[in-house]
Amino acid sequence: MRDLSTGVEHLSINTATLRKQLPLPAIVEACARRGIAAVDPWRDQVAAAGLAATARLLRDAGIRLSGYCRGGFFPAADAGGLAAALEDNRRAVDEAKALAAPCLVLVVGSLPGALAGRPAHKDIALARAQVEEGIAATLEYARGVGMPLAIEPLHPMQAADRACINTLAQALDICDRLDPGRSGALGVAVDIYHVWWDPELARQIARAGRERLLAYHVCDWLVPTRDLLNDRGMMGDGVVDLRKIRGWMEAAGFAGPVEVEIFSEAWWSRPAEEVLDACIARCKTVV
Amino acid sequence: MRDLSTGVEHLSINTATLRKQLPLPAIVEACARRGIAAVDPWRDQVAAAGLAATARLLRDAGIRLSGYCRGGFFPAADAGGLAAALEDNRRAVDEAKALAAPCLVLVVGSLPGALAGRPAHKDIALARAQVEEGIAATLEYARGVGMPLAIEPLHPMQAADRACINTLAQALDICDRLDPGRSGALGVAVDIYHVWWDPELARQIARAGRERLLAYHVCDWLVPTRDLLNDRGMMGDGVVDLRKIRGWMEAAGFAGPVEVEIFSEAWWSRPAEEVLDACIARCKTVV
Repeated sequence: MRDLSTGVEHLSINTATLRKQLPLPAIVEACARRGIAAVDPWRDQVAAAGLAATARLLRDAGIRLSGYCRGGFFPAADAGGLAAALEDNRRAVDEAKALAAPCLVLVVGSLPGALAGRPAHKDIALARAQVEEGIAATLEYARGVGMPLAIEPLHPMQAADRACINTLAQALDICDRLDPGRSGALGVAVDIYHVWWDPELARQIARAGRERLLAYHVCDWLVPTRDLLNDRGMMGDGVVDLRKIRGWMEAAGFAGPVEVEIFSEAWWSRPAEEVLDACIARCKTVV
Repeated sequence: MRDLSTGVEHLSINTATLRKQLPLPAIVEACARRGIAAVDPWRDQVAAAGLAATARLLRDAGIRLSGYCRGGFFPAADAGGLAAALEDNRRAVDEAKALAAPCLVLVVGSLPGALAGRPAHKDIALARAQVEEGIAATLEYARGVGMPLAIEPLHPMQAADRACINTLAQALDICDRLDPGRSGALGVAVDIYHVWWDPELARQIARAGRERLLAYHVCDWLVPTRDLLNDRGMMGDGVVDLRKIRGWMEAAGFAGPVEVEIFSEAWWSRPAEEVLDACIARCKTVV
């Protein structure tokens, strides 16, 4: 296993971690000042800062991406919605390319309308079929552009509204069907928050292998967890055996950045500098 | 599939559904008045009413059990804790027998201390091993008494604190190891709240088969869900395709009661009579 205790060269910050404190340029600047090697920005943050300006900013700061968040949300209630989702995903691929991201992360979506509290139907199998079709179509486009797609399985508590791909096995089954040659064009983003509980985790990480392990996100699972979305913990404050899981990732060949992604009202309410310093300290000691 | 629209003979009420409104004897009485055939009481409710008195009450009311909640919580931080957990499970088996329950439901536990917010360790694999040992020991005792054990996989969002068995596949793997002969002494309680999201659900219900499908619990998954424990929905108010899942259960041979178990601050705040009538109406129309 890599030694993370001596520096920040393997660390990436998912910029959602600081989304309530700072705009993207200030996040990049704060990371650069600490020697952090990579970030993973969200589309709305990039849109606010401008795509070309963000690309320039990153280049000037010497910061690369560990991924780009996000494509996905494929299922729709009608053909027009599906077409719009595919068009939006093509734009996300192009943006990822403009920023030289190593992959576009996919949060695939689920029951149409559920995120707004008005699900159009209850057929999760249909949503799953639409997701696979949507990934297939986006993959065809992304191959042409040369942008790998990373399917992120989301925690089953988000199965209704955010992602109907909920285990690594399920994501890898799709990879097997759409990219049987393991070309590297399609893989997974492993976020420990979503998958730490899975009794299949070690086996599925090994199954994924180097070609399909495109991103690795860390935070922690708090007990108690008070909110289904925005109560993630700082690494070390919860119950996830982070070092064990990173060991599985690296044994399977993963050599990319360890990306910190914390959605947390508690951490969003602290100064950005304090949060970044905590991310660095915890990555050095418990990740 | 059975027709539930014409009566309440296949309906059971898990008495936690009314735990904040009424004591157990009043719940039983209210169910009997409506012709409801079965209930599934919790140990604390039975303890408050008295075991012998509860047995008599049920007999007099002509109400049988669909299960008894609950054994489990096997993992402990030390040998003394493990021994105490096993002793407590033996008592739960005896109580279930005294009440003529068809099975004792097991909520198996997870990281010791996590429920109180002070996890003793982060080794969920250790907790899973202790759970399997605990079930094995309890099964030996329960076989002697003639009380089937029903492992209830809990939703992955409760993996840290309440149950480290989180999928039907995982529960059935344990059944295969501890009761390879499918004797009926060990099986599963399928609660749609915990398993509805699982892409393996249909396949695993079929795999379980009649001998291992010991209980079936219904409620609904709300969007949004505002609490990890006590925001379950009344059937029909959420996104679960209840009829499809019941179809899978019955196709696999399940012929027991459909048990309504709703942990919900919203429903606990309504009059018991209104809740019971809603349970009946929804079971007739959407379950």
